[in-house]
Amino acid sequence: MIDGGLRILNAGLPLIVEAVPPADVLQLDWRPPGFGDPETARLGLTLDDEVTVAANKAAIERVHASRPLITGIRPAREVVPGIAEGRTLLHAGPPIEFARMCGPMRGALIGATLFEGWADDPDAALALLESGAITLDPCHHHDAVGPMAGVLAPSMPVFVAEESTGDSGRRAYSSLNEGLGKVLRFGAYDSEVLTRLAWMRDVLGPTVGAAIEAAGPIDTTSLISQALAMGDEGHNRNLASTSLLTRRLAPFIAAQAEAAQIASTLEFLAGNDHFALNISMAGAKLAMDAAVGVENSTLVTTMARNGVEFGLRVAATGTEWFTTPVGPADGLFFPGYGPEDANPDLGDSAITETLGLGGFAMAASPAITRFVGGTPDDALEATRSMRRITLAPHPAFPLPPLNFAGTPSGIDLLAVIETGELPMINTGIAHKEAGVGQIGAGIVRAPSGVFAQAVRRVAELRGVA
Amino acid sequence: MIDGGLRILNAGLPLIVEAVPPADVLQLDWRPPGFGDPETARLGLTLDDEVTVAANKAAIERVHASRPLITGIRPAREVVPGIAEGRTLLHAGPPIEFARMCGPMRGALIGATLFEGWADDPDAALALLESGAITLDPCHHHDAVGPMAGVLAPSMPVFVAEESTGDSGRRAYSSLNEGLGKVLRFGAYDSEVLTRLAWMRDVLGPTVGAAIEAAGPIDTTSLISQALAMGDEGHNRNLASTSLLTRRLAPFIAAQAEAAQIASTLEFLAGNDHFALNISMAGAKLAMDAAVGVENSTLVTTMARNGVEFGLRVAATGTEWFTTPVGPADGLFFPGYGPEDANPDLGDSAITETLGLGGFAMAASPAITRFVGGTPDDALEATRSMRRITLAPHPAFPLPPLNFAGTPSGIDLLAVIETGELPMINTGIAHKEAGVGQIGAGIVRAPSGVFAQAVRRVAELRGVA
Repeated sequence: MIDGGLRILNAGLPLIVEAVPPADVLQLDWRPPGFGDPETARLGLTLDDEVTVAANKAAIERVHASRPLITGIRPAREVVPGIAEGRTLLHAGPPIEFARMCGPMRGALIGATLFEGWADDPDAALALLESGAITLDPCHHHDAVGPMAGVLAPSMPVFVAEESTGDSGRRAYSSLNEGLGKVLRFGAYDSEVLTRLAWMRDVLGPTVGAAIEAAGPIDTTSLISQALAMGDEGHNRNLASTSLLTRRLAPFIAAQAEAAQIASTLEFLAGNDHFALNISMAGAKLAMDAAVGVENSTLVTTMARNGVEFGLRVAATGTEWFTTPVGPADGLFFPGYGPEDANPDLGDSAITETLGLGGFAMAASPAITRFVGGTPDDALEATRSMRRITLAPHPAFPLPPLNFAGTPSGIDLLAVIETGELPMINTGIAHKEAGVGQIGAGIVRAPSGVFAQAVRRVAELRGVA
Repeated sequence: MIDGGLRILNAGLPLIVEAVPPADVLQLDWRPPGFGDPETARLGLTLDDEVTVAANKAAIERVHASRPLITGIRPAREVVPGIAEGRTLLHAGPPIEFARMCGPMRGALIGATLFEGWADDPDAALALLESGAITLDPCHHHDAVGPMAGVLAPSMPVFVAEESTGDSGRRAYSSLNEGLGKVLRFGAYDSEVLTRLAWMRDVLGPTVGAAIEAAGPIDTTSLISQALAMGDEGHNRNLASTSLLTRRLAPFIAAQAEAAQIASTLEFLAGNDHFALNISMAGAKLAMDAAVGVENSTLVTTMARNGVEFGLRVAATGTEWFTTPVGPADGLFFPGYGPEDANPDLGDSAITETLGLGGFAMAASPAITRFVGGTPDDALEATRSMRRITLAPHPAFPLPPLNFAGTPSGIDLLAVIETGELPMINTGIAHKEAGVGQIGAGIVRAPSGVFAQAVRRVAELRGVA
């Protein structure tokens, strides 16, 4: 019946055309809208109108107009709203009670309780945390972000990010990066960890802070943009941004402090390839916060993990969280570790992907594909695939390997629902037990459930649910 | 007569098939061997035998086995062979008498004469240089390399590169990079230039030298390899290597000197994006020298320009130069300047291309294609085209955008003659008048004449001419 060559276009499972020679089949990367749920798909379609388009245009313009400046480093208690009230500690991700927290986060909170001098030993700290005498709150509720456990205590130094454009009242904060190995953010709290935190409070914070004030503010957009042309993606690879920053600040560090403090500060900066991650995070947080509360906008403003649940927030729904259980990252493990050791995904650092960095900017960073398993072509494809679910290329973050096209920026909830393409997040993998530290790195996809919840709530607010 | 579609394969000039729709023509990038000269082509073919293949294999293996270490910074007079004899100044490129030199090189030599205190003013310095009382010799004759005018005087500090592998007696040297603007290497010699040179001699050299000795040797292969994954190509873009190096040395600089020297040194390193170029050059020089004199090898060991002539040296012919007049680079000019202002191409920095960096490693550096005019695809194509004329990928210089394939390394004279593909060199463009400085950057092709000369001489030595 059929004369001539037969070619097959398959939009279903690859299984259906298994018997056909692969060269004759073009497999479409198509998924049913709404992750297969007709009601979610219907709500997504209903909301996809000119009201949403206009709201999203306004929201992403606000985000892309943001130009965060790191103006200094201050003790959290002096600047982070609410952290100095009573005994308060902040953590990564959406809200969660202490009893339900994962190992690394519990460990980090024990460490922070000891660091603040609220308890004399880990048992006493644990008892205090279990008693509820310490208020535990997400960083995101206090204009702050923290990587991994993301624990922030009042005595810790934080980067202060300020808006340099019109919207000058806004601020965002992030902790200072401790480096790799045994560190608080992976749940370690022994004396080595606490000694380093004390040094960061007493020496690193004041010294680098004074250098920033002398050198002038750090333009995070400019720093990360330069780093994207140097193999960083602004989340898991921060070698270029850290090197650029250190080189720029070094003369000012040398001019600010005593010899011993200069040497120890420069040594720390030379040894910590992730120092600038927290600057990338503070900048991304300030930029995304510009869109919080933009009515009718389906722009994703927050993605954050607490090691138990993944949390999503959307412009139109303001500070409301949509949460769902989270799994471990799929990636490469350090020798001696495997998936069975991995903690479910953790940290506020996905704020970088929310802006269009990290997994969205993989094309900039062929080196990282090796670290998480993959090839440079996978990196280009990862970035291209994120274009399907984002509102616009970021005009200030060109990606050289894609002929300087801007990184895909601003996740549209409706596009995720329509395409079924879930945001890619580059992440470190923590051991599930407190204090072991990082055991690998890899890629996670944001879970579909939070997007389904969010679209329902936006539809309710629009009165179309 | 012809039934069905007609497609044309054209190996001649595109002109021949001008009337045919482009989609029906496959234009081959074919050039007649020997640059159109039958005798050159014949010599190339005659030499292309197992003797040459074996010699080239040995030569490139020596080059790729080289692992140069920068062990310190010393005054040239203490380490550079012959520079302390009488009054001697070194310059870039092949030998050339003072009267025939280009403006920037004459200016740089006047500056160096003043810097050494051999004359009190520029007129006296010029008279002294014209009198022949100062010996002028190529850097390459003294195990050294210098960018642009490449002028090296006995009092100047030099990087010392030593071979870390078996062949441990060898050394190579390079000057320290002065930065951009009014600098000696572009022919400027006013008091600003001489003051900076004195500071480099008295502060920068000793301070960075002591830091290197304290930190341990700089492995140039490792540094440049890392930088290739960060957007450098090791010649015209040195931001990553300079930032990595500064970050690594900063704590040691802070530990070595007095406060004022620490601050001025770190300020200089923060402000000079090309500081590590001269390290890349010293490393490349040491690596290429490993092949000098390998009998019967047609490997190119030196490409260097003196602003009047392009010079080539080949393994089999040892220290013999093949020279031909050189033109200006084709590239982008800074505002206010154009091709009519450009000096013919200048400098020893093409030693980086000789090893497989710079123009050969363009794929690593999409950012530089914008600087010299072009797209990231042009960068990939540039590197791919250099594969046609090189002996092997460099195993220690993987290029991430080409799926970590090694950069094409080791130019084979015979391959250049057979394909007509001329080596690409990234270069700065100097103003033709002394002291104006850099006015642009671009790409040059090595001239064909030197390859034709070289093949004749190799054939004579083999007795097949």
